[in-house]
Amino acid sequence: MSGPRTPEPALDGQGASPPGSQDEDMADGTQHSHRMLSFSDALLSIIATVMILPVTHTEISPEQEFDKSVQKLLATRIAVYLMTFLIVTAAWAAHTRLFQVVGKIDDTLALLNLACMMTITFLPFTFSLMVAFPEVPLGILLFCVCVMAVGAVQALIVVYAFHFPHLLSPQIERSAHRALYRQHIVGIILRGPALCLAAAGFSLFFYPVSYLLMATVVFLPYVSKAAGWCRARLVGPREPPARSLEIFTFDLHEPLSKERVEAFSDGVYAIVATLLILDICEDNVPDSKDVKEKFRGSLVAALGASGPHFLAYFGSFATVGLLWFAHHSLFLHIRKATQPMGLLNTLSLAFVGGLPLAYQQTSAFARRPHDELESVRVSCAIIFFASIFQFAIWTTALLQEGETLQPSARFGGREHAFMFAKLVLYPCASLLAFACTCVLSRFSTAIFHAMQIAVPFAFLVLRLLVRLALAGLRGLRGLARPVPGAADDAQSPLLPAPC
Amino acid sequence: MSGPRTPEPALDGQGASPPGSQDEDMADGTQHSHRMLSFSDALLSIIATVMILPVTHTEISPEQEFDKSVQKLLATRIAVYLMTFLIVTAAWAAHTRLFQVVGKIDDTLALLNLACMMTITFLPFTFSLMVAFPEVPLGILLFCVCVMAVGAVQALIVVYAFHFPHLLSPQIERSAHRALYRQHIVGIILRGPALCLAAAGFSLFFYPVSYLLMATVVFLPYVSKAAGWCRARLVGPREPPARSLEIFTFDLHEPLSKERVEAFSDGVYAIVATLLILDICEDNVPDSKDVKEKFRGSLVAALGASGPHFLAYFGSFATVGLLWFAHHSLFLHIRKATQPMGLLNTLSLAFVGGLPLAYQQTSAFARRPHDELESVRVSCAIIFFASIFQFAIWTTALLQEGETLQPSARFGGREHAFMFAKLVLYPCASLLAFACTCVLSRFSTAIFHAMQIAVPFAFLVLRLLVRLALAGLRGLRGLARPVPGAADDAQSPLLPAPC
Repeated sequence: MSGPRTPEPALDGQGASPPGSQDEDMADGTQHSHRMLSFSDALLSIIATVMILPVTHTEISPEQEFDKSVQKLLATRIAVYLMTFLIVTAAWAAHTRLFQVVGKIDDTLALLNLACMMTITFLPFTFSLMVAFPEVPLGILLFCVCVMAVGAVQALIVVYAFHFPHLLSPQIERSAHRALYRQHIVGIILRGPALCLAAAGFSLFFYPVSYLLMATVVFLPYVSKAAGWCRARLVGPREPPARSLEIFTFDLHEPLSKERVEAFSDGVYAIVATLLILDICEDNVPDSKDVKEKFRGSLVAALGASGPHFLAYFGSFATVGLLWFAHHSLFLHIRKATQPMGLLNTLSLAFVGGLPLAYQQTSAFARRPHDELESVRVSCAIIFFASIFQFAIWTTALLQEGETLQPSARFGGREHAFMFAKLVLYPCASLLAFACTCVLSRFSTAIFHAMQIAVPFAFLVLRLLVRLALAGLRGLRGLARPVPGAADDAQSPLLPAPC
Repeated sequence: MSGPRTPEPALDGQGASPPGSQDEDMADGTQHSHRMLSFSDALLSIIATVMILPVTHTEISPEQEFDKSVQKLLATRIAVYLMTFLIVTAAWAAHTRLFQVVGKIDDTLALLNLACMMTITFLPFTFSLMVAFPEVPLGILLFCVCVMAVGAVQALIVVYAFHFPHLLSPQIERSAHRALYRQHIVGIILRGPALCLAAAGFSLFFYPVSYLLMATVVFLPYVSKAAGWCRARLVGPREPPARSLEIFTFDLHEPLSKERVEAFSDGVYAIVATLLILDICEDNVPDSKDVKEKFRGSLVAALGASGPHFLAYFGSFATVGLLWFAHHSLFLHIRKATQPMGLLNTLSLAFVGGLPLAYQQTSAFARRPHDELESVRVSCAIIFFASIFQFAIWTTALLQEGETLQPSARFGGREHAFMFAKLVLYPCASLLAFACTCVLSRFSTAIFHAMQIAVPFAFLVLRLLVRLALAGLRGLRGLARPVPGAADDAQSPLLPAPC
């Protein structure tokens, strides 16, 4: 881990050079797990967002009203999407924790991990089966089989890694309590599959219990966290057991690896940003017959007919891109991601996944003013929630700023005000647009498009604006009481605290 | 770049710790570009593979013969896919080179990069428009506008970075010839857009010239490389100009950043591995009406009807996963990726992108023996080409092993034989399966499934097999002439050179 080691430092990527002692490691058949984890992150983020596709592809013919049956169908599909997202995110978090224990990999572990991934990618299907046929036990059974298979593979990974301790993270490798660790970790891993075994049993004669048990699997970390917090409140903090200082890496309440949170989020943003172009490439290339018959041979006219789709694509890409940009800026200033921050990030990403839906609705209803108003409002609401959860990550981080934030982003740091402005831009803009549509409902599309165009420009000149504002503040303060050396940093309380 | 700096080294991911001097950098508003580049890689790899979707979704009804018109449609769509893949890969390579010059980013550069990405993601659409309407200039015009927009944004990025030299890579920042660099780099960047401007002009009155010019844009790096090589052969190596030693980072013939080659490949493998589950989640959840009417309420029977699709999914995922595994092992031993290796990698990835198509064909034609044979053969051929190009990367690397490979993977290194076995497994298996289908055409499906099941197990026991073989060889050698200290490495020529 000693930075650039090859003779051409400028050529091998900036900032994140490959780990130094690579070849020495490979001598005993082990490898750093970095690339395998990135690949797993990419797979899991794609799988987490895939269930938005049935939602976006819900077809509503122009004649049909946006009636009860369509609403029910949409609501069901959105529920499937959100549940899938939560389940896959829970699986991803477990995977992250597992590979915080297993520090290096060899070929067997890489292959086992692939098997694990393959099983996880099948979860969304079992889930949509459950929703389509809630009273048939098959969906539940398949889901439980998947979870048990994933658990078995993960337990195998742990047992294998403990059998070859040089694969473990250095702190566990050196620990005297290794056998205890193994027991503890395998126990945590097998908790979910055990619950699922019970759920599978119940599904055969009384399925509601199964759903309850499955919900427990997904929300287990949060439930146990909440229970611990309540207990601490009621009877005071529990006396830590003798070896608890060492059991840190697999504790469900420990912070996630910040790097993997970023990689997972990047995957979600990337697939969401491109979801609409997938549709456009497939559906919006006009048929040559159609062009001849309907548009008298004019390709421009034919493309113009699907113009709203292109607009929707650019709008959706720009919004997702800028939300990624805000996320990127935020995580540059974050040192580690605690569990509440991880949960808020998941919620934000779940709404980001809904963006293509919102934009497609905007284009689908473009002709009828009433539905248009509705879909513009839905779009504003989705953008608002996606961005307000980002903002919530920031405020949560500020609560423990010493631990979680870089010095420059803390209260009074020189980037604090700017970061605040970046994160508050989208919530404000979407709220404003929403409010405007309530007052000027006839111009809702125009308002929405104006927001779409204005926000990117606002981001471009944001630093300038914030600097101007700060310079103004500094100037005022300088007039009030002249201090020597005004060019210092990390001292002046530049802005009031975010509400 | 000084490795882990935070107090909890075991928690922040293994191997690739965030760059050390992060907070100091942020003090002047700059950031390391690592995460932005990963995000761009993810976007571009998704876009590169997206055009396989129209190919996989080509509907062939069971009654219809696999006749000329279908073949022509398929061929056209495959051509679009391959051309899109090459174009996006060329854009990705240019992007990689650009950010080898620009070492750090700030907010403006991040936003400009997003604009660049948005334009690139629109390229596949213009391309499919061109193929659908080859004689209408609109497709060409849109394509050229896109390329020119990308060029303009990239030129803007370069000019901006040279205006704030602390954003440049350290070697260029310190150079005395900075102005020359800028001129040189902007010149290279604007070459493509200039050709496209000409192409756009020609498209209005004589479009074949436009296609020629556009092909030049895509193949420019390879053409100029080949021209340089021919010239060197004919008249001897050109006398290097005085400052040529310094113009290294933007030379089109320089190696690509190995990290970004890996990230781009990971994106392609991840999206390809999950392409089929996207379809399955959307199309293969049976309708509750159908289940009642066609399958007498039996969900199992309904799912059984789409059984081949699930088999195709698992087969495709396993193959893509194992090809990723071979790629991963290969790149662990590679120190840097030269241009021919990059080209071979692109070709391998292009065939990997075709895998879902092959597997879907296998499931679609499951009922008719003739077409089945054909699609099994196509699958074998695609697997063969995807894996043989991986093998070609390895042999190309061996040609300059001192520069490109880690010591343990070179001729005689202890991982050499094992690496060879890993990369040769899939080409051999697919060739064998293909040959078997020629002899035993009636059992083609059985042969194909046997291969699918056998190869993962072969990968699992490969290390064992190679070790046994090596131990046997060593034992024989030891009998021939006893040497002291047989446990040494990097000395014994373990296996004959790969053919």
